[in-house]
Amino acid sequence: MAGIMTVLGPRAREAAGAMALAPTGQKDAVLLSLCAILWQAREDILAANAQDVEAARAEGMKDALADRLLLTEDRIKGMIAALREVAALPDPVGVVVGGNTRPNGLRITKVRVPLGVVGMIFEARPNVLIDAAALCVKSGNACILRGGKEAIRTNTVLSQMAAAALESQGLPPAAVQLVEDTSRQSAQEMMTAKGVLDLLIPRGGAGLIRSVVENATVPVVETGTGNCHIYVDAGCDLLMAVNILVNAKCSRPSVCNAAETLLVHKDAAEEFLPFAAAGLAKYSVELRGCPVTRQILGDWVKPATQEDYATEFGDYILAVRVVEDLRQAVEHIARYSTGHSEAIVTESYASSQYFLAHVDAAAVYVNASTRFTDGGEFGLGAEIGISTQKLHARGPMGLADLTTTKYIVLGSGQVR
Amino acid sequence: MAGIMTVLGPRAREAAGAMALAPTGQKDAVLLSLCAILWQAREDILAANAQDVEAARAEGMKDALADRLLLTEDRIKGMIAALREVAALPDPVGVVVGGNTRPNGLRITKVRVPLGVVGMIFEARPNVLIDAAALCVKSGNACILRGGKEAIRTNTVLSQMAAAALESQGLPPAAVQLVEDTSRQSAQEMMTAKGVLDLLIPRGGAGLIRSVVENATVPVVETGTGNCHIYVDAGCDLLMAVNILVNAKCSRPSVCNAAETLLVHKDAAEEFLPFAAAGLAKYSVELRGCPVTRQILGDWVKPATQEDYATEFGDYILAVRVVEDLRQAVEHIARYSTGHSEAIVTESYASSQYFLAHVDAAAVYVNASTRFTDGGEFGLGAEIGISTQKLHARGPMGLADLTTTKYIVLGSGQVR
Repeated sequence: MAGIMTVLGPRAREAAGAMALAPTGQKDAVLLSLCAILWQAREDILAANAQDVEAARAEGMKDALADRLLLTEDRIKGMIAALREVAALPDPVGVVVGGNTRPNGLRITKVRVPLGVVGMIFEARPNVLIDAAALCVKSGNACILRGGKEAIRTNTVLSQMAAAALESQGLPPAAVQLVEDTSRQSAQEMMTAKGVLDLLIPRGGAGLIRSVVENATVPVVETGTGNCHIYVDAGCDLLMAVNILVNAKCSRPSVCNAAETLLVHKDAAEEFLPFAAAGLAKYSVELRGCPVTRQILGDWVKPATQEDYATEFGDYILAVRVVEDLRQAVEHIARYSTGHSEAIVTESYASSQYFLAHVDAAAVYVNASTRFTDGGEFGLGAEIGISTQKLHARGPMGLADLTTTKYIVLGSGQVR
Repeated sequence: MAGIMTVLGPRAREAAGAMALAPTGQKDAVLLSLCAILWQAREDILAANAQDVEAARAEGMKDALADRLLLTEDRIKGMIAALREVAALPDPVGVVVGGNTRPNGLRITKVRVPLGVVGMIFEARPNVLIDAAALCVKSGNACILRGGKEAIRTNTVLSQMAAAALESQGLPPAAVQLVEDTSRQSAQEMMTAKGVLDLLIPRGGAGLIRSVVENATVPVVETGTGNCHIYVDAGCDLLMAVNILVNAKCSRPSVCNAAETLLVHKDAAEEFLPFAAAGLAKYSVELRGCPVTRQILGDWVKPATQEDYATEFGDYILAVRVVEDLRQAVEHIARYSTGHSEAIVTESYASSQYFLAHVDAAAVYVNASTRFTDGGEFGLGAEIGISTQKLHARGPMGLADLTTTKYIVLGSGQVR
């Protein structure tokens, strides 16, 4: 097993050298060629995918998961649309982000350059492979991608097509490589591939992300765990609050920007909670409440535990707590939040400013759903993940977050 | 021993909350108060420092190291000058680095906010404590600083003065805390203080940095190992080349932006090497050369090993290799460089462009000394270190690199 990265690593490094110097037009041509290849060979993709789905079902995969694995013609069209979107984005490479001419005449510019070799470990959905490959190609990086074993046949076909698209435009096919070994050991090898990977991004469930963050010795950007809160202030538009809450909880409960806990100011609780419960009932949301919540709504609400407050349910479950005031809501968030997305619904300007200043998260909202935390919604174009760490990138990561910078210093013999 | 961070951590986190909201004027007042305190109590500092130096000498510390530990009135003046300089820099907190209004009316701004709690492990020179504290205060962070055991008395006095300066301006003294336990275990505890430290910066020798990078589970920025090269191209101003080489090697050989290896194009070697050797002889630089170098200069040049090319000597020693061409020079650099600072001396525009495009380092120079890689020289003001990694910050790290960003999203009831 040892040695996967010793094979893929040098190939990727060499490819990265060529990718870093490729002009925008050549990189875009790769993405557009890949659109053509995916569509032309869609039968091959669907055949490989059908085998994956069948094998997964035979091993007892649940319908919801099998659905994430499944590709259809429409989903292939979705991949193609994503490729076109990335091709249309501005190239981050070469952008001058700063600089000046020093008193001694040195001309300094700080320029965006590709990171080099980007690794990604992802689960289930095969479109992630195409998205990641597209973003890495566009940003001038080489990538080493490792999907789950349940999608191996689909991923193999897709990565071969990406390699073919690169080759068709005169770029090294090794700029997109798949790790075909889907054992734990191959993941472990990626996490410790010091000098091979310039960045490793885990994209998947909380277990995967924790494992990567704890075990990696290569640079990692932590993505996607979201324990998000909606705080309903005293004195707010209760209809707006219900709309935002129901949207944040129910529009797509499995994603990281969905809400997991509702906090309600005690002065709003009596009126708001029954109203909210009615809205959530349409989606059969299970509530787990604090004692005051249960007093107001009744015993059908389960008691909330500390663990409930700390859990990203990813499901139609909502923890509910009535708080004394805004300050206690902010303290609750500081204690349990994963620093992803947090929202206040209020009509008070002072409350909005306090919340924005005191809540420490990638995205802090006033009077809007947390579901907007997304590269597309924020206007960055496609995203490679949503960072919940503070270093390098925070929040939705776009193309620029797959680059680093280099100081270019032009002199005429200066010495210090 | 276990528990240092469980004591210092919560205090730092609480202090960070206050620091993050402190206006610029209040933070600057802390730095200027600290200037006054340091000068007023200089006798106390010098007395504590004299004890440290005496103890270190008694344990056999070499003169060069003892000199780094030693404080004088002039060096205290240097600390005060550095504090004034940081106070005069613009505040990075609150700077809007991006944003837009979305078609759905959401108003999004991306704003610089402090990281939170910054840890630093440093060696020997006590002025690093004041520099680090100043940069952390100015950028709205709390910091936990751990110096070496040889400077513990000095560091204790200095950190108490920083705490007093904070208190005098109504800010929490715990925004600057010293780890008084200088055992290995306390360093280990910092490296694994997940959730306590938002960033850990090691500043010291290669051994310290390697240990932190390998063992840390908290986010780290790797600083300061520099295996820097000067490449002398065929067809260059040989006098300029000697000046740059001698400056890069000899002006301060112990620092990370000093040159360690000279690469010379084979067509320039015959003429340049004797000229360079004469310039370096004034500083008694020991040369370790490839076979061609020794053929040209003679047997007094020791043979260079692979290990020599990989070594940051930090001393009056220089490895020398004659290369076939620019391409081979770039390959040599790709193999041995730590990605810090690399320079070409050339009169060829094409060579300069090839070097700039193909060399992957934090700073790439044409016709100037690598010694300029420094926050002050680059116009960033004081620096907290020089990052040799690609994530978060690369090259000299200024105040902005001690911040992260937060998306502020203002809505009017938007749902997705």
